Amino acid sequence: MSAPEQAEQGKRDRQVGVWLIGARGSVATTTITGACAVARGLAPSTGIVTADPELAHPELPEIGDFVFGGHDVVETPLAMRAARLVDSGVVPPGLPEAVSRQLAAAEANIRPGIDWHHARTEPRRALERAAAHLREFREQHGLDEVVVLNLSSTEPPVDPHEAHNDIEALMAALDKGTAILPPSSLYALAAIETGCAFIDFTPSTGARLPAIEQLAAESGVPIGGSDGKTGETLLKTALAPMFAARAMRVRSWSGMNILGGGDGEALANPVRARSKLASKGRCLDEILGYPVEAPVRIEHVRDMGEWKTAWDHITFEGFLGTRMRMQFTWEGCDSALAAPLLIDLARLGALALRRGEAGLIVPLAFFFKDPAGTNEHALHRQYEMLRSWVAEPVSV
Amino acid sequence: MSAPEQAEQGKRDRQVGVWLIGARGSVATTTITGACAVARGLAPSTGIVTADPELAHPELPEIGDFVFGGHDVVETPLAMRAARLVDSGVVPPGLPEAVSRQLAAAEANIRPGIDWHHARTEPRRALERAAAHLREFREQHGLDEVVVLNLSSTEPPVDPHEAHNDIEALMAALDKGTAILPPSSLYALAAIETGCAFIDFTPSTGARLPAIEQLAAESGVPIGGSDGKTGETLLKTALAPMFAARAMRVRSWSGMNILGGGDGEALANPVRARSKLASKGRCLDEILGYPVEAPVRIEHVRDMGEWKTAWDHITFEGFLGTRMRMQFTWEGCDSALAAPLLIDLARLGALALRRGEAGLIVPLAFFFKDPAGTNEHALHRQYEMLRSWVAEPVSV
Amino acid sequence: MSAPEQAEQGKRDRQVGVWLIGARGSVATTTITGACAVARGLAPSTGIVTADPELAHPELPEIGDFVFGGHDVVETPLAMRAARLVDSGVVPPGLPEAVSRQLAAAEANIRPGIDWHHARTEPRRALERAAAHLREFREQHGLDEVVVLNLSSTEPPVDPHEAHNDIEALMAALDKGTAILPPSSLYALAAIETGCAFIDFTPSTGARLPAIEQLAAESGVPIGGSDGKTGETLLKTALAPMFAARAMRVRSWSGMNILGGGDGEALANPVRARSKLASKGRCLDEILGYPVEAPVRIEHVRDMGEWKTAWDHITFEGFLGTRMRMQFTWEGCDSALAAPLLIDLARLGALALRRGEAGLIVPLAFFFKDPAGTNEHALHRQYEMLRSWVAEPVSV
Amino acid sequence: MSAPEQAEQGKRDRQVGVWLIGARGSVATTTITGACAVARGLAPSTGIVTADPELAHPELPEIGDFVFGGHDVVETPLAMRAARLVDSGVVPPGLPEAVSRQLAAAEANIRPGIDWHHARTEPRRALERAAAHLREFREQHGLDEVVVLNLSSTEPPVDPHEAHNDIEALMAALDKGTAILPPSSLYALAAIETGCAFIDFTPSTGARLPAIEQLAAESGVPIGGSDGKTGETLLKTALAPMFAARAMRVRSWSGMNILGGGDGEALANPVRARSKLASKGRCLDEILGYPVEAPVRIEHVRDMGEWKTAWDHITFEGFLGTRMRMQFTWEGCDSALAAPLLIDLARLGALALRRGEAGLIVPLAFFFKDPAGTNEHALHRQYEMLRSWVAEPVSV
Repeated sequence: MSAPEQAEQGKRDRQVGVWLIGARGSVATTTITGACAVARGLAPSTGIVTADPELAHPELPEIGDFVFGGHDVVETPLAMRAARLVDSGVVPPGLPEAVSRQLAAAEANIRPGIDWHHARTEPRRALERAAAHLREFREQHGLDEVVVLNLSSTEPPVDPHEAHNDIEALMAALDKGTAILPPSSLYALAAIETGCAFIDFTPSTGARLPAIEQLAAESGVPIGGSDGKTGETLLKTALAPMFAARAMRVRSWSGMNILGGGDGEALANPVRARSKLASKGRCLDEILGYPVEAPVRIEHVRDMGEWKTAWDHITFEGFLGTRMRMQFTWEGCDSALAAPLLIDLARLGALALRRGEAGLIVPLAFFFKDPAGTNEHALHRQYEMLRSWVAEPVSV
Repeated sequence: MSAPEQAEQGKRDRQVGVWLIGARGSVATTTITGACAVARGLAPSTGIVTADPELAHPELPEIGDFVFGGHDVVETPLAMRAARLVDSGVVPPGLPEAVSRQLAAAEANIRPGIDWHHARTEPRRALERAAAHLREFREQHGLDEVVVLNLSSTEPPVDPHEAHNDIEALMAALDKGTAILPPSSLYALAAIETGCAFIDFTPSTGARLPAIEQLAAESGVPIGGSDGKTGETLLKTALAPMFAARAMRVRSWSGMNILGGGDGEALANPVRARSKLASKGRCLDEILGYPVEAPVRIEHVRDMGEWKTAWDHITFEGFLGTRMRMQFTWEGCDSALAAPLLIDLARLGALALRRGEAGLIVPLAFFFKDPAGTNEHALHRQYEMLRSWVAEPVSV
Repeated sequence: MSAPEQAEQGKRDRQVGVWLIGARGSVATTTITGACAVARGLAPSTGIVTADPELAHPELPEIGDFVFGGHDVVETPLAMRAARLVDSGVVPPGLPEAVSRQLAAAEANIRPGIDWHHARTEPRRALERAAAHLREFREQHGLDEVVVLNLSSTEPPVDPHEAHNDIEALMAALDKGTAILPPSSLYALAAIETGCAFIDFTPSTGARLPAIEQLAAESGVPIGGSDGKTGETLLKTALAPMFAARAMRVRSWSGMNILGGGDGEALANPVRARSKLASKGRCLDEILGYPVEAPVRIEHVRDMGEWKTAWDHITFEGFLGTRMRMQFTWEGCDSALAAPLLIDLARLGALALRRGEAGLIVPLAFFFKDPAGTNEHALHRQYEMLRSWVAEPVSV
Repeated sequence: MSAPEQAEQGKRDRQVGVWLIGARGSVATTTITGACAVARGLAPSTGIVTADPELAHPELPEIGDFVFGGHDVVETPLAMRAARLVDSGVVPPGLPEAVSRQLAAAEANIRPGIDWHHARTEPRRALERAAAHLREFREQHGLDEVVVLNLSSTEPPVDPHEAHNDIEALMAALDKGTAILPPSSLYALAAIETGCAFIDFTPSTGARLPAIEQLAAESGVPIGGSDGKTGETLLKTALAPMFAARAMRVRSWSGMNILGGGDGEALANPVRARSKLASKGRCLDEILGYPVEAPVRIEHVRDMGEWKTAWDHITFEGFLGTRMRMQFTWEGCDSALAAPLLIDLARLGALALRRGEAGLIVPLAFFFKDPAGTNEHALHRQYEMLRSWVAEPVSV
C-alpha cells in the first residue's frame, strides 16, 4: 500500500473528537445540528470553506467522522436550543428532529464548564477537571485526534501578570491558587495537557499568552485563533485591500453593530466589549499602512434576536484630494456565519494534529479578526496562506 | 554605462505623448489638470496606482514627461472646462490657474475629432485625418512614444459584419466607404497605423474587433481595454471573491446607478447603455462560477452633476440555507476616480511600447470592467497579474 | 330604541360581502386568511388602520361579519396559495390550517374572472357574467352590502376614447362589441350595476373614467382608489412634508424598487409599469409645490419572492444653498403591507354604503398612491381627511 | 392711521437685537453671515421656516432689522471663523467678504462669556456682568426687543438642588456664592432680568428649572427651548407618525450618529452626551404610545468636519406579525441645518415680546428635540401648533 493509500485508509477509520466550549450556545448548537445534517446529505455544504476542491487534502477528516462533545455552564439541552433556533429562522424546520439521535449523542458528551468563581478560587482543580473530561471523551470514543474549539461568551481582557510569560511560573502560580487566568486559558491548558488542538473563536485570552504558546509548541500541540471573522471585520478585510490597490486614501471608517442574542448582551458590557473592539480595530491600519480614524460601536438590541446588522461609513480621498464616501450594511445571522467556519477549524485542527504540527498555526489567519502570529489581515492574502498550508504534502 | 543606467538615462530624456480622445470632457480635463499638478508637486499622487513602489519600473515614464494632445468634437476650451470642474468640487480652487500654461499647451494640441456623420460617409478619410493628427503630434514634439486613450462618450454596440474578422476585408470595406466602423474603431486604426498604443477606457467597440486586434499584433503596437472600472463594478470585483472564498452563495445582486453629467445623459439612452450594462454584468458569473440574477440600472439625474451614486443590494445564502443580505452605496466623483487611472494607463502604455510588446496587453485587466483577453475579474488576482507584468525585466 | 342603538343592533345582524378581484393572488390570500385570523382572535390587528379607536364608528362592520368571494383567472386553490405564503414567511405556520373552514367557504365563492381576450371580443357579455356572479353572491349570502376590491395584476394604460367621457356612449360601444375597456373597468361597471362599492387597489383604469364615475354617482354607489400606497410612495408622502415644513428644497428624489413575485414580473414589463410609475411620480410635486427630478425604477428580482426593497436617494438644498443628502431603504413584504389596508377599505366601503354615499369617496386618499378626486398627497393631511370623514354622524 | 398700519409702521422702524451665546461657533457664524446675506438678497431664504407666507404676521420682524451681538469664551474673530466655514463648504465662497461690514459690526458687539470657573466661584457676579452686557447692547443700539439664543456647547446635566424650584431660594443661593447653576442658567437669568426673550437651542439646563420658568412668567419675558431638532430626531418625528397612522408596531429604532466639529467632540464626552441622548430618546415613546427599544449613539469622527451622518435602523411588525425593516441615512451639515432655525427663533422671539407673551412659549415645539411644556413630538402636529400661534391676532 502506498503512503497516500495508507493515509486514505487510515483516515476512513479514524473518528475525530470535536469539543466545543460553550457547547449549548447558538453557534455550537448550529454547528452540531448543521454538521450532522451536512454529513447525512440533508443540507448542502454552503459556507464550509474546506468543501472547496482547492482545499482538498487526503488527511482532512470527513464531517461524518466527527464526534461532538463539550463544556458549558448552562444546562438547557441541545435539542431545546435547536428548537429555539428553528423559531429564530436559523435552523430549517424539521432538521433538529432529523438529527435527533446525533444531538442526543452529543448531549451525552457535554460536561459542566469552568465558571469564573472556580477559575478564581481553585484554578488548578478547575483545570484538572476539564482535562479529565477531555481524557474521558477521547478514551470513551477511541479518538486519535481531538480538537477543542472555544465558543464561550467573550471574557473581559485579563490583567497582565509576569507569570503569563513563563510556563513554569504560570503552573506554580496555579498550584498556589493565584487567580491570574480566566476560564478560557484554563481550557487552553487542559487541551494542551491532554494533546488536543485548541482553537479560539472568541476574543478571550485563551492560549494568547506567551507561556501557553510555549507549552503548546513544546507539547507538540497545534493552537490557533482568535475571534472568528464573520461580519464587519470580514468586510473590512475584503474592502480595505481595494482602497490600497487603487491608492485611495481612507480617512475614516466608522462602524456600528447592532445585535441581539447572548453575544449582544455580553458585548453591551463595555468591559467585555473591550476585547472585541480591540480585535476589530487593528486590521485597517495593517492593510492600509497608515493609521485610520476607525471607531467601532456595538449595541445590544434585544429585538434583533439571532441577527446582527453592521453599518459602516467610510470616507476616503481620491485624486486631487476629492472626498468620496462608501457605506454598507451587512445583515447576517451570527450562528449561520460562524458555524461552518467551526466545521472548517475542526477539520483543519485535525489535519494539523495528523501532520504533527505544533504551536501556533499561523495560516488559519483567514478565519480570524485577530489572527495569532501574523499581521496579515487582507482576506485574499490570508486565503492564499491557507491554501498553501493545506496543500503541504502528507506527513509520514 | 550599464544597461539599467542607459535605460534610466534614456527615460529621463524621452517625452511621452498622451493623446486623449474626448480631450475636452470632464475626465480628460481632470486628467490633464491633475497630471500637471502632480508633476509640479502641487497635488499628491493619491489614486495613481503606479505611484506604488511595488509597481516601480525603470522604463515607466515620469508624469512630468507627458505631452498632452487629443481629439474632440466639442470646442469649449480646456481652461473653461477646468473652471467648471472647480465649481463642481472636482478640481481644487486655484489649480487651473496654477497650471494654466500647461493647459494652454495641451489646448494647442487638440484637433477636431471624428463625428458619426463622417464615420459613416467617408470612413477612410476620417481615419486618415485622425492619423495625420497623430503623426503631426509625434513629429512636432519629437515624441518616441505616443499613447492614445479613448475617453469619448459611449457608443451604441456596432452591428456585426464579417469584415470585422479580417483586416484586409476591413480596409477594403473602408476604401469602398462602407459604414461598418464606429468612430472609436477608426481612432483605434489611426493609432495602430501610426505606431501609437491604443487603450480604450470606454465600452465602445474601439479595438475590440478580431481584425483590429490582429493588425495591432502584426504592427507591433500594444492595445488594451476596455471600460474603466471605477465604481460599482470595482466593488463587485472586490466583494464577490469574498463570497466565493467563504463559500457563501450569492443569489441576487441588484445594482442601481444614478449619475449626472454628460456620461449620465449618454447612458440614459437605452441603446448606448447596452454596451455599458453588458460590460458591467459579466464579472459576477466569472468570479462566482455560477449564474447570478444581477440586474443593473443606470439613471441620469441631472442634479448629481459630476457625481454618481451606486446602490447595490445583494442577497446570499449561508450555512443551512440561511438567507442574508448586504447593501452598499458608493458615492464617487467619476472624474476623480477615472483620471488617475488614465495617468496609469498612459505610463503603462508607454512601458509596453518601450518594451516592444505587441497586441493585447492582458495584464491591464485590473483597470477594466470588461478586460480584453481574459475572464479574470477578481480585483486582487488582476492586481497580481499587473504587478508580475510590470516587474518583467527591462527590455534590451 | 334610540337611533344609535338601532344602528348598533342592525350592524350586528348584517354581514358584509367582500369581493376580491384577483382572489387567488398573494395579497387576496393574505387578506382572507388574515381577516379570519383576526376575527377569531388568532392574530392581533396590527396594520389595520380602522382598529384605532380614533376611527371608530357604529356603522363600521366588524371583521367577523365579512363574507369573502371573488374573481380570478387562475385556479390554484386558496389553501394551496396560503400554504405557499407560509413558506415565504408571510403567513405564520399553522394559520391556514386554523382557518381552513373559512378558506374553503371563500373558495366556494370564487368565480372565473374576465380575461383580456373576452374583454376585447365580447365586452358586454363579460360584464354581464361578472355582474351575475355578484348578484348570486349577494343573494346566496343575504348580503346588504358588498364591497368589490380590485387586486388583479396591473394593466397597461388604456388608449383614450371619446366614449370614456359619457356613460351612454360607453354602454353603446360595449353593446357593439367595441374593445375600449380593460377588464378592470368592466369589473367596475359590474359592481356599480349591482349596487356594490368598487375600490381599486391597483393602478389599472378601473373606475377612473369620467363615464364610470358619473354612473357611480348617479347609481348611488360609492367608488374609490387607486393604487394602494404601501411602500416607497408611503415614505415619500410622510417625508416630503418634512422638507416642505422646514423650507428645504428637494432637488432630486431617485427611487429604485426591487421586487419578486407576480407583481414584480408584471411591472418588469415596461408597458404595464407605465401605470405604476405615473401614479408613483405625482406626489412629490404636489406636496412640495415645485417640480422635482424624481426618476423611479422597478426591477423584478425573482429571488426577492414576496418581498420588496425600495432604495431612495434624495438630494436637497438647505440654508445658503448647502447641498445635503438623505437615503433610505424600505424592506417590506408586499402582502403584509397591503392586506390590512384591504380590510380597512372593505370596512370603509361598507360604511359608505350604509351611509348612502355615492360617487367618489375622496377621503380614502390616505390609502392610495394616486388618490382619486384630490391632489392632497401629504400623509398626515390625508389621515386627517379620513378621520373627519369617518366621524361624520350616523346616517338616518 | 389704523392699528395694522401703525403696527406695520412701527415694525419698520424697530430694530431687533439678536444676542447669541456661543457667538463665535460654527452655527452662530453661519447664522450671522447667512442672515446678512439673505437680508441683502445675496442668498435665498431656503431653510427659513418663517419665510413661508403661511407663517406671515405683521409684527414678525424683517431679517434686515436684526442687530447681532453675543457672548463667547473663545476669541477667534467672526471673519476668520467665516473663512474657515467657506473651506468646509458650509458658507459659499465670497460671502464673508460681501458681508464683511456686518460681520465687523457683530464682532464689535461680542463680549466675553461666562466660563465654568466663574459660574462656580462667583455666580452672582458672572450673572451681573452678563446682564450688564445685555443692557449695554440694548441701549447702545436703541433696541426695543432683544432675543437671547443659546448656542454654546452642550453642558453635562446639572445635579438637582432644591433651590432650583424656587426663585427666591435660587437668588439667595447665588448671593451666597453657592455653585448650583451652570453657565447656561446664569445666561437665562441675565436675559430675564434684562427683559430679553431667552431661547435655548442646546440641551443644556438653561431656563429649564422651575424657578427660572417662574421668574420668566412673572417678569413678562417669553422663554423657549430646547435642543434644536435638525437631524436624526427631525426624521424620527416625521416618520414615527407614519408608523402610528398605519398601525404598524415599531419594535426597535437604533440610531448611530457620526459627527466632527466642536459639537462632536463635546458629545464624545459621555457625561455631556447624557443631556443630548436623553432629549433624543423621548420622542418615539410619546408619538407611538408604547415603549420602544431605541438606543442612540454619538461618535466623534474628526474627519467629518462640519458634517454629520446619522444611520437609523428600524424594525417593525406589520399584519400577522410579519417583521419588516427600514433604514435611513441623513447626511447633513449641522450649521446649515441649524442657522435658519435660529433666524426663525429670533423672529418668533421678537414676535412674542411684541405681543407681550410671558413664560414658556410652548408652540415653538416644532424647533426642538425636547420641547418645553409639551409632550407633542409629531412634527406635523407641532407645525400646526406653530401656525396657529403665529396666526393669533396683532396685540394692542
